[in-house]
Amino acid sequence: MESATAAETAAMPRGVAHLKDELDIVIPTIRNLDFLEMWRPFFQPYHLIIVQDGDPTKTIKVPEGFDYELYNRNDINRILGPKASCISFKDSACRCFGYMVSKKKYIFTIDDDCFVAKDPSGKPINALEQHIKNLLCPSTPFFFNTLYDPFADGADFVRGYPFSLREGVPTAVSHGLWLNIPDYDAPTQLVKPMERNTRFVDAVLTIPKGTLFPMCGMNLAFDRDLIGPAMYFGLMGDGQPIGRYDDMWAGWCIKVICDHLGLGVKTGLPYIFHSKASNPFVNLRKEYKGIFWQEEIIPFFQSVSLPKDCTSVQKCYVELSKMVKEKLSKVDPYFDKLADAMVTWIDAWDELNPTGSSAAKVANGKAK
Amino acid sequence: MESATAAETAAMPRGVAHLKDELDIVIPTIRNLDFLEMWRPFFQPYHLIIVQDGDPTKTIKVPEGFDYELYNRNDINRILGPKASCISFKDSACRCFGYMVSKKKYIFTIDDDCFVAKDPSGKPINALEQHIKNLLCPSTPFFFNTLYDPFADGADFVRGYPFSLREGVPTAVSHGLWLNIPDYDAPTQLVKPMERNTRFVDAVLTIPKGTLFPMCGMNLAFDRDLIGPAMYFGLMGDGQPIGRYDDMWAGWCIKVICDHLGLGVKTGLPYIFHSKASNPFVNLRKEYKGIFWQEEIIPFFQSVSLPKDCTSVQKCYVELSKMVKEKLSKVDPYFDKLADAMVTWIDAWDELNPTGSSAAKVANGKAK
Repeated sequence: MESATAAETAAMPRGVAHLKDELDIVIPTIRNLDFLEMWRPFFQPYHLIIVQDGDPTKTIKVPEGFDYELYNRNDINRILGPKASCISFKDSACRCFGYMVSKKKYIFTIDDDCFVAKDPSGKPINALEQHIKNLLCPSTPFFFNTLYDPFADGADFVRGYPFSLREGVPTAVSHGLWLNIPDYDAPTQLVKPMERNTRFVDAVLTIPKGTLFPMCGMNLAFDRDLIGPAMYFGLMGDGQPIGRYDDMWAGWCIKVICDHLGLGVKTGLPYIFHSKASNPFVNLRKEYKGIFWQEEIIPFFQSVSLPKDCTSVQKCYVELSKMVKEKLSKVDPYFDKLADAMVTWIDAWDELNPTGSSAAKVANGKAK
Repeated sequence: MESATAAETAAMPRGVAHLKDELDIVIPTIRNLDFLEMWRPFFQPYHLIIVQDGDPTKTIKVPEGFDYELYNRNDINRILGPKASCISFKDSACRCFGYMVSKKKYIFTIDDDCFVAKDPSGKPINALEQHIKNLLCPSTPFFFNTLYDPFADGADFVRGYPFSLREGVPTAVSHGLWLNIPDYDAPTQLVKPMERNTRFVDAVLTIPKGTLFPMCGMNLAFDRDLIGPAMYFGLMGDGQPIGRYDDMWAGWCIKVICDHLGLGVKTGLPYIFHSKASNPFVNLRKEYKGIFWQEEIIPFFQSVSLPKDCTSVQKCYVELSKMVKEKLSKVDPYFDKLADAMVTWIDAWDELNPTGSSAAKVANGKAK
């Protein structure tokens, strides 16, 4: 399985750049962004927010012709002041700073080791275009459709699908997948070092209400207005006892909040080509505590029930932080710190987004 | 999109006929079973149970070389006596009589207008083999795996999937899909008369716990020991106010019982080639009441909570029949009759299967 070459993607018809003025691409990185060459035909019309992790004195090269803003750690500290403590350092969790400073309605975030995948016919896949399709189409979390996305071309709701549920609900999150290197944990990487994902599953589906899933941040899009304040990637990396659970944490949080607010989460298409596996030994060290903790975190999230008066994402998230403090602090004092950081994150979000999100406005019936 | 020809399937290497002595193929029909010619390489090693619907004096021709037993309405009346009232007439719902008289652990049921589909490489699909794979592999109903079936070749559980849940649970039901004519309701058939399903989705997935789905009886396999007594296709067709909800009814019932007993339900592969659409006008007449009723039936099933002491499928099913009587009779008196038929079905099942299912034995710790 090979990814598309830059020449192959450059040869693709460009088509319309949908939501050009309403979507930011967020990329966390520690290196020069040569990978953007391959994505040029698909990404160049969009604005990029680059979050530079690690040494802020290092210069990150961005290929010419891209419109971008770049934040390093000094920028984050300057902009957030003491609240910068909620943004992880030396971990790709720092990407969520980009979600916070964006002024757009939609975010697409991608890792810098993700290349353009090809569909089974050999055509380079415009991942961003598929994410936009996913976000603009309703989700169907209350009943499973056996032909998958009922809004896809040539598909529909099957016999027995209640008509009252066919309008669906707004989609808040679109979770894309990976060909080549699958997103495995360290133990699985160690056991199956040669496993590659070659299965192209031509489907998008809504994750049903009440079901949790492992959300990977490598190839992810969301509606910032609908769910942005819950897309916090937690405290990982430098000075923290854990890594590689940033996107998982965000996934559990956004799912219980989407379920509460009646919003949809989709997974499936689009695929990106994940080029290289991270070091499983390093990963094991990062994941070690998480392997134990997740056995208690999952039942916690499965039992979360948010009160009716939590009508905005912010309210839901602050309520969730209280539950984390109450229920998970006994697992490890880390969760006490994390619960505090969740509140700091919301404070910082509201400071940078003073008029509130559209969702909050709708839910509260007025601007915050 | 074309189905495989009989010559193409005959040319397939036969391989091992898995579970040859443990699986029956149940086919409801009103016509000669010429469609079996195409399935010969895949079905011939297995025993068939043919349930002849309609006029019992008509002779159904079965291609030579197949091992089968055939039951017409006279046989059903003779075998079940007054309890035959629970078996539908002039409706493919009659197929569930075949589930009851089988002495095997597994059932595969298929409609006689379903042909052999081809995979994207043009190879005829051995649907039965895939169903057996699905049934023999565990299900994972408690957490969603984004790479779909973690037991498929080249796949596994992804990062963030709790290790304690990776053993999975026994699979009770395997729901297969259809290329060409999709399983649409009458309104959708009327609106989209030309729609064909050409999307081959290369995935099997577990329907999460707590999520209902529209189960189609066209291409379905199940473990009779684990869930057989709940696979009742209800009262449809002759003398009843409704049709085409037989498999839906069974699907709702088996799902809440599987959820209660900790059993899995899978959907996805294998595909069959569904050759011809039924008449949408006739279908509308059959479905008419169901279109209204399902709006109340779905919330009913979503709210079903079975008591802890329901440790066998039979106990669950009888308990469910009481809930149907209590909660759905006010929707229409039909449900009062249906609730009674559910009890009759269990009585008849236990009469024909006096030692109980293996599942009941396990659950009760002794043979019934």
